Amino acid sequence: MTDAERRRAVAQLLVIRASGHAEDGQRRYPQWEHCNRDLERLLRSGVGGVILLGGSATELQQRCRTLRSWSDSGDLLLCADVEEGIGQRFEGATWLAPPMTLGRLHRRNPQRALNLAERYGRTTGDQAKRCGLNWVLAPVCDVNSNPDNPVINVRAWGDRPQTVADLVAAFERGLNAAGVLGCAKHFPGHGDTDRDSHLELPLISHDRSRLEQVELVPFRRLIASGIASVMTAHLLIPALDEDQPATLSKAVLTDLLRTELDFAGLVVTDALVMEAISRRMGPQEAAVQAFAAGADLILMPADADAAIDGICAALAEGRIPESRLNESLRRRADALQRSERNPVDEAAPILETEGDRDLSMELVESSLEIQGTGAASHPERKGVNLIRVDGVLPCAFLRSGAAAISTLERHGYRTLICHDRGIEPWNANPDRAAPLDLGRLGPGPVFLQLFLRGNPFRAGQQRPEPWAEAIQQLIRAQRLSGLAVYGCPYRWDTLRRLIPDNIPAGYSPGQMPEAQQQLLEKLISGPRAANQQRDFTD
Amino acid sequence: MTDAERRRAVAQLLVIRASGHAEDGQRRYPQWEHCNRDLERLLRSGVGGVILLGGSATELQQRCRTLRSWSDSGDLLLCADVEEGIGQRFEGATWLAPPMTLGRLHRRNPQRALNLAERYGRTTGDQAKRCGLNWVLAPVCDVNSNPDNPVINVRAWGDRPQTVADLVAAFERGLNAAGVLGCAKHFPGHGDTDRDSHLELPLISHDRSRLEQVELVPFRRLIASGIASVMTAHLLIPALDEDQPATLSKAVLTDLLRTELDFAGLVVTDALVMEAISRRMGPQEAAVQAFAAGADLILMPADADAAIDGICAALAEGRIPESRLNESLRRRADALQRSERNPVDEAAPILETEGDRDLSMELVESSLEIQGTGAASHPERKGVNLIRVDGVLPCAFLRSGAAAISTLERHGYRTLICHDRGIEPWNANPDRAAPLDLGRLGPGPVFLQLFLRGNPFRAGQQRPEPWAEAIQQLIRAQRLSGLAVYGCPYRWDTLRRLIPDNIPAGYSPGQMPEAQQQLLEKLISGPRAANQQRDFTD
Repeated sequence: MTDAERRRAVAQLLVIRASGHAEDGQRRYPQWEHCNRDLERLLRSGVGGVILLGGSATELQQRCRTLRSWSDSGDLLLCADVEEGIGQRFEGATWLAPPMTLGRLHRRNPQRALNLAERYGRTTGDQAKRCGLNWVLAPVCDVNSNPDNPVINVRAWGDRPQTVADLVAAFERGLNAAGVLGCAKHFPGHGDTDRDSHLELPLISHDRSRLEQVELVPFRRLIASGIASVMTAHLLIPALDEDQPATLSKAVLTDLLRTELDFAGLVVTDALVMEAISRRMGPQEAAVQAFAAGADLILMPADADAAIDGICAALAEGRIPESRLNESLRRRADALQRSERNPVDEAAPILETEGDRDLSMELVESSLEIQGTGAASHPERKGVNLIRVDGVLPCAFLRSGAAAISTLERHGYRTLICHDRGIEPWNANPDRAAPLDLGRLGPGPVFLQLFLRGNPFRAGQQRPEPWAEAIQQLIRAQRLSGLAVYGCPYRWDTLRRLIPDNIPAGYSPGQMPEAQQQLLEKLISGPRAANQQRDFTD
Repeated sequence: MTDAERRRAVAQLLVIRASGHAEDGQRRYPQWEHCNRDLERLLRSGVGGVILLGGSATELQQRCRTLRSWSDSGDLLLCADVEEGIGQRFEGATWLAPPMTLGRLHRRNPQRALNLAERYGRTTGDQAKRCGLNWVLAPVCDVNSNPDNPVINVRAWGDRPQTVADLVAAFERGLNAAGVLGCAKHFPGHGDTDRDSHLELPLISHDRSRLEQVELVPFRRLIASGIASVMTAHLLIPALDEDQPATLSKAVLTDLLRTELDFAGLVVTDALVMEAISRRMGPQEAAVQAFAAGADLILMPADADAAIDGICAALAEGRIPESRLNESLRRRADALQRSERNPVDEAAPILETEGDRDLSMELVESSLEIQGTGAASHPERKGVNLIRVDGVLPCAFLRSGAAAISTLERHGYRTLICHDRGIEPWNANPDRAAPLDLGRLGPGPVFLQLFLRGNPFRAGQQRPEPWAEAIQQLIRAQRLSGLAVYGCPYRWDTLRRLIPDNIPAGYSPGQMPEAQQQLLEKLISGPRAANQQRDFTD
């Protein structure tokens, strides 16, 4: 192999990040997403994979065609973090209620949960294929045993090892039937962390026998059923390796995953730009150490050229044997071949089938939780529809016509949306008994809607907000007319206990408009006015 | 002509509304935008035009292909309200600073303004064509002689008749060179209204000689240079017709526009769903009256089938002569033929050329106004970046990485965004001297950014906000560190006088991210930190 050939071969192992939008100016995260000039250069030089984020499903289709046209071989791995259906990331495709929905359903009705999980995988795989993706970075195999987990939470398929194993295996069957590659993540298990690996390196202090009983169970199951890829976690697990995070650890990736668990597919790192890794070492060294430890594919290196240079140099120096390169290339070729089953008709206009829509509605329906016998009455004076969104606006689930806004406005409520960059509803002087500044909300009954997920990247940016105390304050003031919680089941379980029976309260794990509509229909009675939204252009 | 043939012929004269998105669930205004099933049915039954709104430029390209495939003849008029470049409505294309920019520049440098106006038309036309549109609903020919105009304002090319005439003629030359149809609107002139015709019928009480001296000047110019279409205004002008709004008036459309001004092109109504019309009569009667008055094309009828039925019945009854139908069909066919010049390479990947980007930057640069000698210093304690957006979030110009947010955050400011659905910054008890509740903002210097345009649909929804008094309050409290106004020049002219010389203040007619960046670079000095935005996924 000449140097040029080796460079080209190594480049195949990279998975670089691109926006799903066509134009550079549309990138939402320009510091992470390559511009088109760089993308074309890297793909022409042999880079073999792209992870996409942002844009609509229509844009994604076009984008995948463009990226393939820039790759001389056309043999690209095109993937996305679409754990909750393609619509989670790409508007216009189907957005499914999060996996935890089925973990909760599984307690009551395991057979129905397994059936829905398989359809979940099939819908995700079919739509991925129609959009041009051949690799879905799911299912999450982490057992969410820690309710304070800031990065996994509702992304997990449950909090019990067997439940998660059964559900992810069903999901993978659906995905595989669609002819799309899956990815079991985050090895060896990210469910029991209370730190965010996007920001720092979490520590898992369990011993090997606990890992066997909990964390490894779903991974073993998917390896046995032939999952195409496994993604590594940025975690320090002293029971396995006292020094290196799993992503960079030969003990974890080679000794445990390859040898002991006998995994023959692709090992892909989690994004190397994450601070758990990038704080420890430069972009070149991170890629080299991950590859040396046993990873086949390098996801989102902070510097793609440096990653290629570094791995080439390590091969030339003999620090990594040439055989490792050949093995990884062979595994990649095998995966690509496997993904070429079930070709789709690219001209087919339909992205979301009726079956896809039925699934998304059934997931929402099966997951709603309602309590209270009363119903939010039509307020005689104008009430307040107080909404707290995760993070900042704009957010995908709260457009101007979303049910969380329009349904309440039809019933005479005016909307106040709180977000990280808005004026807070809290009293300036902290008061545990009366945290809300009721003067800021104005008069009338308050219907409270909380969109809360354990979202990453938020550690230290947000102080915890006293919603439990706020709810008690509103109840004492006889001003709470209803509560809707969308997202985190643990927060719901805490808050629901505060609500007396005559006030309607409900929960949906999904935050999407369909979930808002179904939940609010159950919580709110009264005459339905026509939608008064008048602005047809601006 | 059989009844079936006549129905099909009449259908050609309709221009119905569609979302630019592919899927029904993505429609932002589902009560105005036909679902795909109806769109396909109407196009197959002969409907000849579609007005598009929403989605990105990539989605628009795909959407235009789909719509043409649903039309048996493929001969569709595909248009959009893209007065400020395709990017005003379709993300990814070029969004240009509003026309008023050039009206103001024209006072200082008429030749440069005319040159830019022609490039404005060319860029808009070229991008329209690349997206699949053949008809641009611009230029606005209204002379904005009334600063309180709630619907025109910065959409106008100036407030003097000759300036507007010169600039729109230059714009039309550019559009025509691209082979795209233009539309002079809103005939006979919407510049001197202080009511919003989306909500009610405004009255123009000028006599005929004033109309000749002001309102009609730009229209006469564009008719002389061969503009393809003219859009009617929903205005009552007793000097021309004491009973009927212009859109429904034979005196305005036939006697004045066709006969006296000798216009031979297409007359298109403004949207018939607007309340100025829809409050007066049913959807069928509105379409019949507009057609009888002299309109060729019926834009956004409230009920497309009823509009076709009504016009067919009026023709059958002899209320409208068959010759009118034939004339309108001929004009439509002529316009379509004219738009088929300069075919584009649909496979060309580039939507926004370097020339387009240069134009957009030059328009921003040429339009900034700066006063004050000081610069917003790097605050020692955290300051407040207080932003008021027009209307509600999300808005196209204020994404999470927009300069209005990121530039100030790099300088230590925290962002507070006020919008129509957020908690207000105002004191509960009105106090002219101290309208702002400073406690809600928190401590530190305040950098104020106001995004204010005379947007439609807002009459009565918003009470006027006392920003002038708020600025004086902040100055007295020695807390104002800067002011940026984006949009309405009249508001800027009022507010700028309040700012002392040691506080930087600036104005941009454009609200887009490039305008924010250029304006803030001039207003803010101090060390530039790297962009700290860390979240590369969620």
